[in-house]
Parts: sequence; structure tokens; C-alpha cells
Amino acid sequence: MLSIEKYQEKFIEFLQEYAVIKEPKSLYEPIQYILNLGGKRLRPVLTLMTAEVFNCDYKMALNAALSVEVFHNFSLVHDDIMDDAPLRRGQKTVHEKWDMNTGILSGDAMLIMAYQLFENYDQITFKSLAQLFSKTALEVCEGQQYDVDFEIRDDVTIAEYLKMIEYKTAVLVGAAMKMGAIVAEASENDRHHIYEFGKNLGIAFQLQDDYLDAFGDPKTFGKQVGGDIIENKKTYLYLKAIEFSNKHDALQLQHLFSIIPSNPEEKIQKTKQIFTTSGATEATKQEIKKFTNKAFSVLDALDISDDKKLILKQFGEQLMNRTV
Amino acid sequence: MLSIEKYQEKFIEFLQEYAVIKEPKSLYEPIQYILNLGGKRLRPVLTLMTAEVFNCDYKMALNAALSVEVFHNFSLVHDDIMDDAPLRRGQKTVHEKWDMNTGILSGDAMLIMAYQLFENYDQITFKSLAQLFSKTALEVCEGQQYDVDFEIRDDVTIAEYLKMIEYKTAVLVGAAMKMGAIVAEASENDRHHIYEFGKNLGIAFQLQDDYLDAFGDPKTFGKQVGGDIIENKKTYLYLKAIEFSNKHDALQLQHLFSIIPSNPEEKIQKTKQIFTTSGATEATKQEIKKFTNKAFSVLDALDISDDKKLILKQFGEQLMNRTV
Repeated sequence: MLSIEKYQEKFIEFLQEYAVIKEPKSLYEPIQYILNLGGKRLRPVLTLMTAEVFNCDYKMALNAALSVEVFHNFSLVHDDIMDDAPLRRGQKTVHEKWDMNTGILSGDAMLIMAYQLFENYDQITFKSLAQLFSKTALEVCEGQQYDVDFEIRDDVTIAEYLKMIEYKTAVLVGAAMKMGAIVAEASENDRHHIYEFGKNLGIAFQLQDDYLDAFGDPKTFGKQVGGDIIENKKTYLYLKAIEFSNKHDALQLQHLFSIIPSNPEEKIQKTKQIFTTSGATEATKQEIKKFTNKAFSVLDALDISDDKKLILKQFGEQLMNRTV
Repeated sequence: MLSIEKYQEKFIEFLQEYAVIKEPKSLYEPIQYILNLGGKRLRPVLTLMTAEVFNCDYKMALNAALSVEVFHNFSLVHDDIMDDAPLRRGQKTVHEKWDMNTGILSGDAMLIMAYQLFENYDQITFKSLAQLFSKTALEVCEGQQYDVDFEIRDDVTIAEYLKMIEYKTAVLVGAAMKMGAIVAEASENDRHHIYEFGKNLGIAFQLQDDYLDAFGDPKTFGKQVGGDIIENKKTYLYLKAIEFSNKHDALQLQHLFSIIPSNPEEKIQKTKQIFTTSGATEATKQEIKKFTNKAFSVLDALDISDDKKLILKQFGEQLMNRTV
């Protein structure tokens, strides 16, 4: 098996051969642009790595890995329109650099292209991959819709929030790994368990993202620390704090999440204080640990050697320590 | 074989069982809404009819037919956003009734759902259907992009225009029929020729749409007669008129297509006069006839009985006389 960095490198080589500009340029240029904006390429690396965990050459999984990455970028292009986001990885978003119609249409084309990449596999593998892909893609849409719906609701439960991040983020991590297992013709049992491993790790990762957004180190956290608080985003920390707080603190927190001060420093400090005094900070840490351990415990059920299990566990640990 | 009306009826029954509202409602309600707005359901009827032409029970083709209709409606939802169209079949468009984000996301979900409908078929049929679907869907996106690009170009050739309508409209008609042939396990030869039949008929139909938009009977033409002229849309009639006209008339036509008068009657009359005196009207009629005949001549190559060929021909004639 290769190192994460090696898989990234091999994947980017493959991506660059793929992302050439066809006619009409106005449709395919934005696709090439967004696919080359960079990022850690975690999902496709997981597909390649998983194929090798199940004793299949990673090269066999390159098309499936690319499909996952093309789909992920499709969802970024459309989400950025919906959020009216100006920047993505420090560069202009597609609808900003071109226009909204280009963003919609190029996104649509990418969703179709993601399916086309499966055509390189035989009929049995093709159907398994496309079926998993459709289920996952629809869940990602549902997750995005829940996220939009939650913005205007003030009665979102913890269970609903967990379902939202599962759909919006985690199922694609699970599916990326399961695709590697499908290409490797792993057993149904192994396919199921590697999906659960990825999904639970994905939930843990997203909860950690919520946590780091408030308590992360500005030097190492990729985004602006306090960003969710500034935008009044009802994250796991917020929902838990509302649940755990006395009436006075809960009302104060609700008030803080109804204002948009020009200097948000005081708001951020007060919010973080309630997060911590209420016990929400500690509960979030526990929940991250719970889902991480849930992921690791699934590894026992896999029909692979112990050193392969160790590789998966180390990857999970690196991911949760954000060194990958 | 059943009558067109019977296929429509059977299809609508099937559609109504399918279009039930799941959670999140905000994602699935708009999908149910657009799928129930009506329309002639020509594409899915063609899928069902073609399956029976190739000696397969139409019921086997219902999922493929529905996939074509779901895809067609996906493209309407996204196109209506891009054109900022307020109405569709006399009812509010999805982005007008809800909002733009709902239109984008519900459209995305429909594209995925169209693929999922193929999962009801075995692996061999599934791959054939999905592969044809992806190719077609991508061409439809490319056609829409060409249409957008052509709006700001003044050097569009007739060949480019024909390619645009082929991609934007005709390939889906061809694919709808080919899907019926795939479900019926028709030979590669038959699949190819029925696709060509549908595609050429689709081009003829779209050219006729251009023609009727200027010269149709307001009583029977579904849309506002003169609508393309009012919107300065460079249709086949316009491009041919520019090609055929002397310099004076060409300049006048270009001028007419640069203005948006509050009362368009005079503009419409002058334009139609140039269309006719230039010979563009006659040339358009000839082109419609050419593609219709091209479609009919393909029928000879099909390995089906003469009465089946007659049914296809009669359908084509009804379609071109717009009684279907």
C-alpha cells in the first residue's frame, strides 16, 4: 500500500488527464476550473486506499475515485450558488467568476459526468457503483435541504441535526470507501462495514469541525475561527448549549444568535463561555469520541489482516488530529 | 398495441403512484408539483410505444419511460431558472412558487431519481440504459449551453443552429425511443435506427416549432404566435433570412432584432415579410420536410413487420400535423 501523499499524487495525475476542456468551452471551462482548485482530495484517496485494503490495485479504482471527486465538486458549485458564497479555497466561486447560469449548468453536467466515469467498469460493478452513488447523492441533496430548512427553524433537535450532517457530509465518506470495496469485489459484509466505518468517521469529523470552528487554533484551522458563531449557525455546540443551559443562559444565547454586530469579538467570547459553562463543549468532545470509537469498533468485523486494520485506524486517527 | 391516448393514460397512472411526497417535504413537494403540471407526455409515450413495436409488453418499459419524463422535467426546472421564466404550462414555475434554491436542489434530486428508475432492470439493461441516458443528458446540457452562447453571438451558422436544436431537443426524443428498444432487447441495428428515427423527427418537430411561432394559427399553436420575434430569438427562419437577403433587407432584419417595441405588431409583420420574400419561409418548410423524410426513410432498415412501420409512420405524421 502507498502513503496518503502518494495516493493524492497518483489521483491528481489522473484528474489532470481527465479535466481537459471540450466544446462548448463555456460549459467545460468552469468544470476544469473547479476540479483544479485543489483541496486535500480526501474522498478519492479513501476510495483508492480502500481498494488496496481489499487487495485490489488502486489503479482499478481511479475512475470510481474520480467520480466521487467530480460529484463532490458538483455539490460545491451548486451549494456556493445557494449560499451566494464569493470564495472557495481562496479563489472565486464558479458563479462569481462566470455567472449563475453557468454554475447551474456546469454543475448539472458534472453530476452526469460522475455517472459516466462508472462506465469503465463491467455491468455488475457498474450497477453496484451507480446504485450506491444515486442513493448517496440523493441523501446529500436531502442533507443540504435539511440544512437550508434548519436555518429558519428554532426547534431543531439533536437527532435531526445528526441526521443532517450524516446526509450532507458523512454518507459520501462512507460511499467513497464502499466504492473502493466494490471495485475490489469485497464481500457484502466487508462492503457494509467499510461504509459504516467511513460514515461514522465522517460524522465525527463534521462534529469536530463544529468544535474547532469555536475552539480551534486560528493557525491550523483552515477557516475563520468563530465563523459559525458570527453567522448564527446552529451547530451541535449551540443545540447542546440550549438543551443544557438554565433559562437565563438559553435566552441570552438565543439573543446572541439573533444579532449580527459589526465587531463580533464580544459575541464570540460570550457564546463560547455559555458553550463551556453549560457543558456543551464537553458533550461535543464526548460525541466526537463516541463516533470515532464507533468507527474503529467496526474494523473488528472486517475480513482483512490486522496490519490493514491498523492502516485504517491510523488514517482515522490522523484525520481526527487533522494532520491529513 | 394501444392507442397514443391509452399509453398516455397508463403512463399517468404509473406517474401518480411514483410522485408521492417524502421527507424533506421542501425537497420533494416541488418535484411532485412539476411532474403533475401535465403536458402531452410525448417522450414517455414514445418509450412505451417503441417497446411494443419491438414485441415487448409496454409495462416492462414504464420505469424507463418515467425516467425520461423525470429527466425532461429536471431540465425544465433548471432552464426556467436560467430564463427566469415565471410560468410553465400556465402555472407558476418552481423557482417562482418556491425560490431559486429550491429549484436548483429539487432539479438536482430529479436528475438522480431519473437514474434510480433504471435500477428496476437487470445489470445488462441497466448499464445500456444508464449509458445512453448519460450521453443524452450531457448533450442536452451542451445544447442548452449553445443556446445561451448563441444569444450574444451574431455569427451563428445554420450548421451550428441545427446542432444546437439536435442536442437541446432531438436527442432526447431519439433516446426515449431507443430506451424502449433496449428494454425490448432489440438488436443493436434496430436500436440504432429507432434512435435515428426519433432524432430526425425531433429536429423536424423543432424546426416546425420555429416555423409555427411565426406563421402558426394562434388558435391551435400552444404558445404566443410571434413570441420568438418579440424576443429577438435567432431561429432557423431568422438565420436563413439573413443568409438569403440582400444587404438592405439583412440590415433591416438585424435592426428589427435589436429593438423591443412596446407594441410589437409592426415589428412582427415586417419580420415575417422579410422571412417570406427572402425565401427563408420556403427554405424552412423544405428543411422540415427533409428531416421528416429522413426519419421515415430510416424505418425501412428496421427489422419489424410492415404494420408496425406504418404505426411509427402514422405517429410521425400526426406529430408533424400536431394532432398528437
